[in-house]
Amino acid sequence: MEMIVLEEKNLTPEKERLEKQIRFIVEADKVKNIFRQTYLADGERKENDAEHSWHLAMMAVLLQEHMKEKADLAKVMTMVLIHDLVEIDAGDTYAYDEKGAQTKREREVKAADRIFGLLPEDQGTYFRELWEEFEAYETPEAKFAHLLDNFQPLLLNDASGGKSWKEHGVHRAQPMKRNERIPETSETVWEKMLEIFDKHVECGNLLED
Amino acid sequence: MEMIVLEEKNLTPEKERLEKQIRFIVEADKVKNIFRQTYLADGERKENDAEHSWHLAMMAVLLQEHMKEKADLAKVMTMVLIHDLVEIDAGDTYAYDEKGAQTKREREVKAADRIFGLLPEDQGTYFRELWEEFEAYETPEAKFAHLLDNFQPLLLNDASGGKSWKEHGVHRAQPMKRNERIPETSETVWEKMLEIFDKHVECGNLLED
Repeated sequence: MEMIVLEEKNLTPEKERLEKQIRFIVEADKVKNIFRQTYLADGERKENDAEHSWHLAMMAVLLQEHMKEKADLAKVMTMVLIHDLVEIDAGDTYAYDEKGAQTKREREVKAADRIFGLLPEDQGTYFRELWEEFEAYETPEAKFAHLLDNFQPLLLNDASGGKSWKEHGVHRAQPMKRNERIPETSETVWEKMLEIFDKHVECGNLLED
Repeated sequence: MEMIVLEEKNLTPEKERLEKQIRFIVEADKVKNIFRQTYLADGERKENDAEHSWHLAMMAVLLQEHMKEKADLAKVMTMVLIHDLVEIDAGDTYAYDEKGAQTKREREVKAADRIFGLLPEDQGTYFRELWEEFEAYETPEAKFAHLLDNFQPLLLNDASGGKSWKEHGVHRAQPMKRNERIPETSETVWEKMLEIFDKHVECGNLLED
């Protein structure tokens, strides 16, 4: 099949790779239309997965100094840039949606097969394994990526006056539970998280437990 | 001044750095509201700088194999993630806006001073220098970043049926001129660009010269 396509289009292997990469790049564009529950800092609208992932990758450069374990920066950046692509098919599952969480893994694995499968095989495997590494939450890179994935919406929620928390009637115990592994990744960031939770409980944006 | 802030808030140097990083991270959120002239692949709306930058950083991972010169991946990714932040103050200058181009540099330098100045000094200097390196278009990393910055909107334009080109009445000579340095960075990508231009001239989306 591969050979036929190459012969038909008379493409060199390098150009054939570029065509597959372009197919993936254009498909990935759809993540710009997957909206999250978090509002932008100005509270005007919700943010989408592409914007969120951009923010995490830039934060990785700045916040690496606060991590307990040294992580490979390019790997962390790539991991956060692609970690939400499965949501193109599977949709965004809100952090505190217990029903959605039950089917999340199944929906996302199917999406990963299809989307990463568009790439040249070696690159598709690399992205797929990076995504699985993120999900497994074990390596220093995955821990750093999860910290970024949790800390960024918290900063936006803080900036927008806890808008998303208020809308969903979130209790302090929920982000506390969601972030329970942050202390093993960074004490400094964890202390800042606690400070933010306390402030928003005081303001009534997060409900007391 | 620095000392007073530290004493008043009773912050350790590490926490003081985190506060500055957060100030910058929240300020950078505004780039999600800077809209470009390029439409998303589905043609439904224009894309913003954060989405654009996310796309470039992910493309860097995939397309590095096509570059003539080896580039440091983490550096290229960081460069493209921050290259449009100056537009928070300076606004987006459309590629073929000759009047806007005259004042672009002055507006962007002022923006760089303010925005990168929010960071701890070493990190602000690093980002500022990376931005200047991008602008200078000399190193392998800057050449790769420019290729990404030019190729991505071209792929989106292609996917959306040349929508942005049609809207602005763009002639083939304009993207040809804008991309004149691509062949020194990647022959493979340049040949793909030519193929796209030819197709859109044929379809009447790009005007003949």
